[in-house]
Amino acid sequence: MTLPNANRPNANRQVVLRARPDAGVTADLFETIEAPMPEAGPGEVLIRSIWFSVDPAMRGWIAEAANYQEPVPIGGVMQSFTVGEVMASNHPDYAVGDLVQGRQGWQQFAVSDGSNIDRKLDPRRAPISTALHVLGINGITAWAGLVDVCDPKPGETVLVTTAAGGVGSSVGQIAKIKGCRAVGITGSDDKVRMCLEEYGFDAAINYKTVPDLGKALAEACPDGIDCFFDNVGGAQFDAAMELLNPHARIAICGTISMPSFPIPNGPRVNRTLLVKRARIQGFLLFDYVDRFASIVEELTGWLADGRLKYREDVIDGIEGAPEALVRLLAGENQGKQLVRVGADP
Amino acid sequence: MTLPNANRPNANRQVVLRARPDAGVTADLFETIEAPMPEAGPGEVLIRSIWFSVDPAMRGWIAEAANYQEPVPIGGVMQSFTVGEVMASNHPDYAVGDLVQGRQGWQQFAVSDGSNIDRKLDPRRAPISTALHVLGINGITAWAGLVDVCDPKPGETVLVTTAAGGVGSSVGQIAKIKGCRAVGITGSDDKVRMCLEEYGFDAAINYKTVPDLGKALAEACPDGIDCFFDNVGGAQFDAAMELLNPHARIAICGTISMPSFPIPNGPRVNRTLLVKRARIQGFLLFDYVDRFASIVEELTGWLADGRLKYREDVIDGIEGAPEALVRLLAGENQGKQLVRVGADP
Repeated sequence: MTLPNANRPNANRQVVLRARPDAGVTADLFETIEAPMPEAGPGEVLIRSIWFSVDPAMRGWIAEAANYQEPVPIGGVMQSFTVGEVMASNHPDYAVGDLVQGRQGWQQFAVSDGSNIDRKLDPRRAPISTALHVLGINGITAWAGLVDVCDPKPGETVLVTTAAGGVGSSVGQIAKIKGCRAVGITGSDDKVRMCLEEYGFDAAINYKTVPDLGKALAEACPDGIDCFFDNVGGAQFDAAMELLNPHARIAICGTISMPSFPIPNGPRVNRTLLVKRARIQGFLLFDYVDRFASIVEELTGWLADGRLKYREDVIDGIEGAPEALVRLLAGENQGKQLVRVGADP
Repeated sequence: MTLPNANRPNANRQVVLRARPDAGVTADLFETIEAPMPEAGPGEVLIRSIWFSVDPAMRGWIAEAANYQEPVPIGGVMQSFTVGEVMASNHPDYAVGDLVQGRQGWQQFAVSDGSNIDRKLDPRRAPISTALHVLGINGITAWAGLVDVCDPKPGETVLVTTAAGGVGSSVGQIAKIKGCRAVGITGSDDKVRMCLEEYGFDAAINYKTVPDLGKALAEACPDGIDCFFDNVGGAQFDAAMELLNPHARIAICGTISMPSFPIPNGPRVNRTLLVKRARIQGFLLFDYVDRFASIVEELTGWLADGRLKYREDVIDGIEGAPEALVRLLAGENQGKQLVRVGADP
């Protein structure tokens, strides 16, 4: 691997957004440009990027429609969770050589006043890239949606969609840690095998090849569904709704199978929720910021115990970031989609 | 008013179910018949009916489709919440003259082993018919969905549909007791006036005549919607979803505007729930049985304080019960729909 800017030491390569998606997300919505090398001003640090996270939520971050936050502006650096190394510091909390997980975006170098640095990393406890998935947004998201929103009880059945992905695989494993039956829906036979053999799911379904999703799901969930962690919406969501047990809890984490706008039609959930006294709740990682540290501590313990496994799907080089996002949204990644843009220290 | 069976003292008139509804509920699904006068056996009481409750949930009780419980059998007495007087007792807990709220169904006389008697009534604390609405299923339902499911905070906006009805009027008044802005949707200008003048709503909308429900709702809820107690589903539900504030809570109490089967299509809620981190939860009165006594006690206090008002819409005579149900489902009742089948003691 080449070090960043080995040939152009004063340039900062960035991936910027050129256009908003009309239909799907394509790589040509982005462009890799070279900007001047930034410098750390008073109270600031200069960070060298090592890892970029690639996440389904990015579809929303670049969309026109009102969402949780302002969209990435046209011409702006694509926002992203990142892991990097502090190269220069005028900030009392950070020293040169510190490894940090932050939100520096898809660029090789960034300055920060600390407000978009989430935490310092200790490479002796876990590989630093895990701060972007199993010990970061994916693991925290899995914990928040399953443990906090669904509150699974031993013996219950937990269903998760995109089960082999960064979030889904953690949901399944946390379900097992909590004493539940873990059932996953995923999109390839390889991913089914990953769910069963690597992550310890009790059952897993390839929704792309199964002849009748409802029937397959009913067989995989003989006692019905108590907790449902959904990342996709649409037909998989509809199939799960048919199998809810009374007092089922559904955490809406994503809607990757649904267009953002206009809102598509589907079966109305009201009567099912009423008859089953079930609950559907949307949740966002950002609402758990105050609890990140304690959640990460619990996840780190499970990782150390060997109860929480992960897989990374790495693309090398900053120019590959848009394509990595397209791959992720097409479901072609196997494990957490990352982009490696610099050498580990 | 004539006393029951004044002319046929040994007959027990009953309203039985003759057919299940294909499309809508019509009076000819029922028939009033005469059965022999029942007698209280060992451990049983004989109850004379005074009041029948008429409730939207009855549509589900007579439907074919699987629901919370077994449907009323064809040829069986229509089930109903009732208020009556104990005429004979072989049960240690009940004496002749006791007034009880139970589930004796649409019949003039019933025997009970006590298992379908919910509570004894004290006519000095409140009129006994209130045990069928504001101090009974309607008030408890309002309390459960608003206080328990939605947990409204002072200053929040609470929206309720079928706002002038037995449940809706209590929801609006409890919202005011909790320090909220209460907004109602209802189906006539008379009901709008009832909401504003009798029940103290801050705003009320006639969905049948307003040119643009979404716009009218937005004007009635200038700070958005924090709690939504829904009895109808469909277009009113959709309009409310557009105005949810972050962390909004929706209690699904009924779906009276929606066909029970097949499940109709409508806008998918997943993305709205996600973006707003909102929660939709179905709930059923029966899940609150253990808390009925304490909830009724709180409601009785509010009634005594004059903070909880009610209106009754009374049809006289057991033969009118099916028509009362049709009226209710058509939204023609003003206040709690009751059938009076016997004299107060």
